[in-house]
Amino acid sequence: MEKDRFQAELQAKTKQIEELLKKYLPEEKGYQKTVLEAMNYSLMAGGKRLRPMMMQETYRLFGGNGTVIEPFMAAMEMIHTYSLVHDDLPAMDNDEYRRGRKTTHTVYGEAMGILAGDGLLNYAFETALKAFEEPEADLKKVAQAMAVLARKAGVYGMIGGQTADIEAEEQTEPLTREQLLYIHENKTAALIQASMMVGAILAGASKEEIAQIEKCAYNIGIAFQIQDDILDVIGDSKELGKPVGSDEKNHKQTYVTLNGLEQSMEEVRVLSQEAVNILDEIDGDGEFLKQLVITLIDRRK
Amino acid sequence: MEKDRFQAELQAKTKQIEELLKKYLPEEKGYQKTVLEAMNYSLMAGGKRLRPMMMQETYRLFGGNGTVIEPFMAAMEMIHTYSLVHDDLPAMDNDEYRRGRKTTHTVYGEAMGILAGDGLLNYAFETALKAFEEPEADLKKVAQAMAVLARKAGVYGMIGGQTADIEAEEQTEPLTREQLLYIHENKTAALIQASMMVGAILAGASKEEIAQIEKCAYNIGIAFQIQDDILDVIGDSKELGKPVGSDEKNHKQTYVTLNGLEQSMEEVRVLSQEAVNILDEIDGDGEFLKQLVITLIDRRK
Repeated sequence: MEKDRFQAELQAKTKQIEELLKKYLPEEKGYQKTVLEAMNYSLMAGGKRLRPMMMQETYRLFGGNGTVIEPFMAAMEMIHTYSLVHDDLPAMDNDEYRRGRKTTHTVYGEAMGILAGDGLLNYAFETALKAFEEPEADLKKVAQAMAVLARKAGVYGMIGGQTADIEAEEQTEPLTREQLLYIHENKTAALIQASMMVGAILAGASKEEIAQIEKCAYNIGIAFQIQDDILDVIGDSKELGKPVGSDEKNHKQTYVTLNGLEQSMEEVRVLSQEAVNILDEIDGDGEFLKQLVITLIDRRK
Repeated sequence: MEKDRFQAELQAKTKQIEELLKKYLPEEKGYQKTVLEAMNYSLMAGGKRLRPMMMQETYRLFGGNGTVIEPFMAAMEMIHTYSLVHDDLPAMDNDEYRRGRKTTHTVYGEAMGILAGDGLLNYAFETALKAFEEPEADLKKVAQAMAVLARKAGVYGMIGGQTADIEAEEQTEPLTREQLLYIHENKTAALIQASMMVGAILAGASKEEIAQIEKCAYNIGIAFQIQDDILDVIGDSKELGKPVGSDEKNHKQTYVTLNGLEQSMEEVRVLSQEAVNILDEIDGDGEFLKQLVITLIDRRK
């Protein structure tokens, strides 16, 4: 796909998802108004909306063309957002700014930061459950998609990765490769897996196809994370918009410190090629999705 | 129902629910072991298990006799527990002890307290979703029960009440009756409503019956809260196991300061009578449930 056309499509699709999200935002009224404001503030803080986009593209790749996917797209972005809101809390990463904007607890206070995160996680499930009411909904498939979404977001997915990551920071002995992969798989890949798997499930993909998509999303997530570690070593701080070399300075153990730069770059290449190969094997229009995957991984910032 | 027999049944049922909960606990292993330990520590901290008990009794009252209710019973207790874990955090109520036992963040640290709460909320949905796999599951009814559970736990239920309560504490002008009822309805009654409604829905109650049960649970929740305020004025601190008169000392606005002791007592009487009347009208064995409601409201501690 031509680069300009891809960029134009990417912009158009991001805008469509922003509109979709607005449809699902809670109205800011009632005695609980403040938590609703804090939730909407967090949700509409920008971001690339990659997870709902990958969900929708995977749904389309398998021939899905209904609206049953929409509540799940909104729910996925709510889950991603709640995880950022709680991550930014003083007891976690203690971040005052995110993408140049004050974090939720900085604006609304710490108690409301906790409640807004809880509210978003709960509202994500409320929202996804609306898929059961969609006219074309296949109840069994919706239930299966709900189960994947919930599992990959929880202690056997993202929350598990978050826990291991926090503990790794306090660990004095070197991380093992297995441990680092566990963190990347769960902290990053799990929500990409859920996104793509939900798309595949709702479009009626077979059990084997869903397993392939899970593998594909795993590769994307891990490659993305390794690339992150690589860019911290060889990146251009101007392009990245953040200082490079911070991992080394913080004595942070990364994929690169563990395996060296060359092997890390080779692994990114292999993982992303495999991911694209899986998408290639599916009989459907995956051009945009493939380009999105390549752009995501093979980036300079 | 005779008092001794009721107490014996209450004990037996509580024990059964404890056993049921254990069946649904996550295994404490893997790189995310700490968050799993913190979740189980919170869940097994005791408590009366009233919500799952009321769910099961309402299910039985409407003739339910399957196992589809069990994942929902466990999920309800997980939601109740996560709300306590997050409530106890330093940024919220900052409680070091609950029921004579150290609170979750006191034992596992604040970051893990946040993650254990998130983990429990997410795991509650994972657990309830297992009801879709129960052999006798009616997918539509399970989806309807999921929607009620999610709504009553979220910003249009418990989290909404929690938000309004936190803001009320900072408010200098007097609370209105409407505001106080909003807080009690959502902070306390909402999960009782969800418990009883889920029981009714899964047992196949009619739309009208579900609406009656929602009203009944509202009355129970509000009466319980008003009784709490009454006991703070007239209770025996030895029986209560906590000092009385603390609301007045803290200048806390309660139902009693707003409406006086006599009117508050009369309202408790009317609300609980109405709740019992609703249960009386249902054709089924509600003896234990009615006794439970009466014991809950008409208590000295």
